[in-house]
Amino acid sequence: MENLKTMNPREVRQLIRKGDFTGPTSGLCPGYVQANLVILPKEIAFDFMIFANRNPKPCPVIDITEPGKPVPSLVAPDASIITDLPKYRIYLRGELSEEVLNIGDYWREDFVGFLLGCSFTFESALIRAGIPIRHIEENKNVPMYITNIKCKNAGIFEGPMVVSMRPVHYDLVVKAVQVTSRFPSVHGAPVHIGNPKAIGIKDIDRPDFGDPVTIKDGEVPVFWACGVTPQAVAMRAKPDIMITHSPGHMFISDISEEELSIF
Amino acid sequence: MENLKTMNPREVRQLIRKGDFTGPTSGLCPGYVQANLVILPKEIAFDFMIFANRNPKPCPVIDITEPGKPVPSLVAPDASIITDLPKYRIYLRGELSEEVLNIGDYWREDFVGFLLGCSFTFESALIRAGIPIRHIEENKNVPMYITNIKCKNAGIFEGPMVVSMRPVHYDLVVKAVQVTSRFPSVHGAPVHIGNPKAIGIKDIDRPDFGDPVTIKDGEVPVFWACGVTPQAVAMRAKPDIMITHSPGHMFISDISEEELSIF
Repeated sequence: MENLKTMNPREVRQLIRKGDFTGPTSGLCPGYVQANLVILPKEIAFDFMIFANRNPKPCPVIDITEPGKPVPSLVAPDASIITDLPKYRIYLRGELSEEVLNIGDYWREDFVGFLLGCSFTFESALIRAGIPIRHIEENKNVPMYITNIKCKNAGIFEGPMVVSMRPVHYDLVVKAVQVTSRFPSVHGAPVHIGNPKAIGIKDIDRPDFGDPVTIKDGEVPVFWACGVTPQAVAMRAKPDIMITHSPGHMFISDISEEELSIF
Repeated sequence: MENLKTMNPREVRQLIRKGDFTGPTSGLCPGYVQANLVILPKEIAFDFMIFANRNPKPCPVIDITEPGKPVPSLVAPDASIITDLPKYRIYLRGELSEEVLNIGDYWREDFVGFLLGCSFTFESALIRAGIPIRHIEENKNVPMYITNIKCKNAGIFEGPMVVSMRPVHYDLVVKAVQVTSRFPSVHGAPVHIGNPKAIGIKDIDRPDFGDPVTIKDGEVPVFWACGVTPQAVAMRAKPDIMITHSPGHMFISDISEEELSIF
């Protein structure tokens, strides 16, 4: 396991599939896209797909598996979403029921899997562009907030947008917009810059999820749509069953981060 | 009808709904996004939605209507896709059956409508950037070609990508890439620059659809994914019923072209 950091995505997925790696995936396969997973029965997956199409910033679809087929053919054609994530969560009627290492016992012929873009990808682009990421520097979780921005409804799915916040020095705000605009399939450009109250955030030091981070003099809070949104929205709809990755235990795809940039 | 050119999208749709305008929509409501329409029964619309997600360049989804609801709530919340396009085509098992002015007699509770981005939008962006469009200058249809680029399959949907070609002076090729990259939801950046044979086009002067256009000295053929692709792919799948707009008779949305740009 010493060479875990040098393995390619396929090799890491093989380890995970055999149950030999069950930890968080942060830092593995640098340069490759990692994704959030949401699995729903086909009947409501249809509405969820419309919801994702109507709300591409919080719900950027990287791949969708066909009903009953666990293969993300676009981003990892030899993978299976039944076995290739290190840890899964089973939700029954919106309540967490169990955490498991694979979902073979739960898989159904009407299941549809959504792989959704995750902020790991655009954070590494920001870092390459010389924009430091505070929560990484402070070894914390990114602060996330429920906003007053309503997502566009679709069928049973509705709810507020959740955003993540990164403080950016005012000299670098334009660059941060440019860099993340290149990656529309991992949340894209910010949804708001500068005034937390304008989007319904009462206290920037008390995030709804994650940890507060330091905002230094000369820094501006910049808000991006967050991948927690689709999970929160799906949970509100209380489907009979929904399966997701466990936080931090992501799907590692075969595509490079740069493949997701639009230029 | 004299003031048709100054009407806003809602006003033009009202005229169309009453049957008072049945012509092509080119040139109407300048600055507003026009879209292609594909309507399919829910059962196969699911696969089609996966297909569109896997092939965003030829199949850029602008809006999806929920099953049985004819309202494109994202781009024109007071519109109806049953009545608000000037002309429709009904396809039965992949064959053109009829052309009609509204689809009230055909509408079903399981119908799902897809509004797909159209090249009108990025052409006006190119023109604003000082890049002339040859087929407009020559008053022709854009030349379109079936390529050897395979779309990514999804369920019953598969087929080659169709591209459109615009000759661009080599001084302006970079600018053309930049300008269209800003519009991923209307086909985005080119799929190929320069060598028709590399993408399976045998004779640039004999397009598969549309008209040939002049390529002048110093000009390079630039190829973009084309909105004919999803219709061609849907037709190959021979669904029991499929309804589309008639060529040139598009849906006029309430959103401005600039709203579709990602920066």
